[in-house]
Amino acid sequence: LSPEEFRKFAHEAVDWMADYLAHADRYPVLPGIKPGDLIDALPRCGPEHGEPMSVILEDFRSKIVPAATHWNHPGFMAYFATSASGPGILGEMLAATLNMNGMLWKTSPAVVELEQVTLDWLRRWMGLPDNLFGIIFDTASTSSMHAIAAAREMAAPEVRTEGDGAGLVLYTSEQAHSSIEKGAIAIGIGQKNVRKIPVDAEFRMRPEALSAEVDQDRASGLRPFCVVATVGTTSTTSIDPVAAIAEIAEHYGLWLHVDAAYAGVAAIAPEFQHILKGCDRADSLVTNPHKWLFTPVDVSALYTRRPEILRRAFSLVPEYLRTADHPRALNYMDYGVPLGRRFRALKLWFVLRYYGREGIAEIIRAHIGWAQELARQIDNDDRFERMAPTPFSTVCFRRKGSDEDNRALLDRVNASGEVYLSHTILHGKYCLRLAIGNMGTTREHVQRAWKLVTAGDR
Amino acid sequence: LSPEEFRKFAHEAVDWMADYLAHADRYPVLPGIKPGDLIDALPRCGPEHGEPMSVILEDFRSKIVPAATHWNHPGFMAYFATSASGPGILGEMLAATLNMNGMLWKTSPAVVELEQVTLDWLRRWMGLPDNLFGIIFDTASTSSMHAIAAAREMAAPEVRTEGDGAGLVLYTSEQAHSSIEKGAIAIGIGQKNVRKIPVDAEFRMRPEALSAEVDQDRASGLRPFCVVATVGTTSTTSIDPVAAIAEIAEHYGLWLHVDAAYAGVAAIAPEFQHILKGCDRADSLVTNPHKWLFTPVDVSALYTRRPEILRRAFSLVPEYLRTADHPRALNYMDYGVPLGRRFRALKLWFVLRYYGREGIAEIIRAHIGWAQELARQIDNDDRFERMAPTPFSTVCFRRKGSDEDNRALLDRVNASGEVYLSHTILHGKYCLRLAIGNMGTTREHVQRAWKLVTAGDR
Repeated sequence: LSPEEFRKFAHEAVDWMADYLAHADRYPVLPGIKPGDLIDALPRCGPEHGEPMSVILEDFRSKIVPAATHWNHPGFMAYFATSASGPGILGEMLAATLNMNGMLWKTSPAVVELEQVTLDWLRRWMGLPDNLFGIIFDTASTSSMHAIAAAREMAAPEVRTEGDGAGLVLYTSEQAHSSIEKGAIAIGIGQKNVRKIPVDAEFRMRPEALSAEVDQDRASGLRPFCVVATVGTTSTTSIDPVAAIAEIAEHYGLWLHVDAAYAGVAAIAPEFQHILKGCDRADSLVTNPHKWLFTPVDVSALYTRRPEILRRAFSLVPEYLRTADHPRALNYMDYGVPLGRRFRALKLWFVLRYYGREGIAEIIRAHIGWAQELARQIDNDDRFERMAPTPFSTVCFRRKGSDEDNRALLDRVNASGEVYLSHTILHGKYCLRLAIGNMGTTREHVQRAWKLVTAGDR
Repeated sequence: LSPEEFRKFAHEAVDWMADYLAHADRYPVLPGIKPGDLIDALPRCGPEHGEPMSVILEDFRSKIVPAATHWNHPGFMAYFATSASGPGILGEMLAATLNMNGMLWKTSPAVVELEQVTLDWLRRWMGLPDNLFGIIFDTASTSSMHAIAAAREMAAPEVRTEGDGAGLVLYTSEQAHSSIEKGAIAIGIGQKNVRKIPVDAEFRMRPEALSAEVDQDRASGLRPFCVVATVGTTSTTSIDPVAAIAEIAEHYGLWLHVDAAYAGVAAIAPEFQHILKGCDRADSLVTNPHKWLFTPVDVSALYTRRPEILRRAFSLVPEYLRTADHPRALNYMDYGVPLGRRFRALKLWFVLRYYGREGIAEIIRAHIGWAQELARQIDNDDRFERMAPTPFSTVCFRRKGSDEDNRALLDRVNASGEVYLSHTILHGKYCLRLAIGNMGTTREHVQRAWKLVTAGDR
């Protein structure tokens, strides 16, 4: 593709993109296809000879888009809703063109230094301490796995060499994200050494249960090394009592990691900064700009006040990657598993600058307001019950009745094509889960979802 | 940013992108800045209020681009050169706009099924067996870490629960990429349990040394579980004798992983399909389309013939991610650490279709031809010596003389701004390393690099 042909087709693509962003709500959120349909619609072998770009773009529109679940649809309220904002997309376009790999400072000062700058801006906005080191990974799962590995390096540095971490125990709540347990399994901690601490009636880790478990494990000769608290759990967005957990972590010498993947950015609004209370005492914290900060996937920010320990866990420099030392030349490859590093900070820089702190706070504030309005409507409707507090923009509720009824209700609502909700199980009951987080979502979209939920009831 | 404003600025961005692709060679490959310069040029705090997009784009051009190392410059011949081809950039633009997360089939059939289709096309082109399962990760480091974890799951399934992998031993060559050792450390194998098998004069793992080590470890009561062979090592692009290693792996019941991150795609050219000889017997293999397949970072393809073991190592499904089972609905989240999954297959699909198998083979063939021409020129020049065979597009050589001379030579050549070479150490000597892999590179660029290298010699 010559630069001039690229120019032509990229302008064509941009027109499609702008139309899509203007009218994503014209698509059904969930595509009406069966598993295997797209595979069956595509050739089994790639083409021997090149094909015209016009044909490829046409196939994109006629075959790929109809198989898409539209995360950028304003009715997407499943899992945690996300947004590809215009500024974020512009950043991705330019990053893909430069195609830099920021494994070392020398291989791209721009990648390395803009990552430092944007993560520092975000840190300040969230009210986190000055001394944090930030690094971008693809997902919160990967960020948390690195935090857990750093925790192991602090508690049992011999594991890096010897590989025997027998007896190390990690603590998290029974409402923690599955990625915490998965990360521990991946690095060899073992599933049976992951303690799931019970929660209170509002789904928050019970600190006294944590202390009791740690005491018991120590008495058994085991080695407690890490506790993971959550600010904004996945099921209900509950907030663990981080300050109390930090107290325990400090007492027992545990690494405290905070999973604030979804909710952490809410602290950008001053009235929500209290959600991170105690997080200044954490050893590490993850938050995902690709969730509620309007930045396209993927970009997950891991902060730690102990970068030297993260580095000790992961640094390994072969000769062909050796460069001249300089106190200000950061080589991010020393701080994690992935060697290659895409220019993910650029899209984040575009988003932070275009909206500014106040602009971002305003959108987050509105999302929380609409969720709380919906929570009140549910509370005022005798046919429904709210199943958890609503501290952020996610509402868990159910129709009074059987799990079967609620499953059928969810299927009916999602079949509308106007909205996509997901589910969870709370207090043993099947619940619907509505998460507001897309920039295009308005109060009217939320109210429309509520109308669809209640429509079957006459 | 309204869709209409997005349209305007995206068209402006596209014009910059097309100009950049046409004239990347007008920039110095390496930027003339010092560590910290970009950080110092940017504000210490993000803006309180949003800024105009025109200002942000202008800052991109005036502040970010001058801090870029230009991987898309035709003179970039360091590490492994890569390309953001026009089709690949178009795919990234559209993927960023849809912003889907393919963790489950339901959350995006398009992401999941196009990943299956494109990886199957690539597999066929490389002549790999029918029964391989493919999955995309960010980098080869991450792919290999997953392969090593699967190997552990096969040999010692109790580790997932118990977490005690004491005595497990992994084998690779002393020329293997550092990511193999790092992956083993990350998952808790321990650095002292990574055996670096000696290589022959052409930097290939010595199979008889491998057998001897495995025998000795078994005799000591250790548990050999994995061997990693390389097709195209990072220093010299040497090719381990995979068939002989597969023989040993089968005999001892080791998982065989092949790191073909850079060179694997050369098998798309029929005359180079022999480089993967023996790889049909591998348990897993990684190759990176973002290296020599003209696709923007990041996209690394991991293949395995034992997907059920990879799944057993990583599957963990909480209630909020549970969806209806269907034999054709693949949930990629079950096969690795990252839960979120960007639509990386789209750009690969654009590249594979636009160039076709023959088009890709032709470019790879040309790169290898120019490298071999350069190898002959080095061999015919008394002042220089070639330090390794040149099976692919990477040439390792040095000026006869001291390491200091060669370091100075490399600095001088890179200071030209026309070319960027890297270095390695072979047989204890400092060598220059020239790697051809960017689509924009021509025979003339390679010859110009050689002229710059020899220019100091009158």
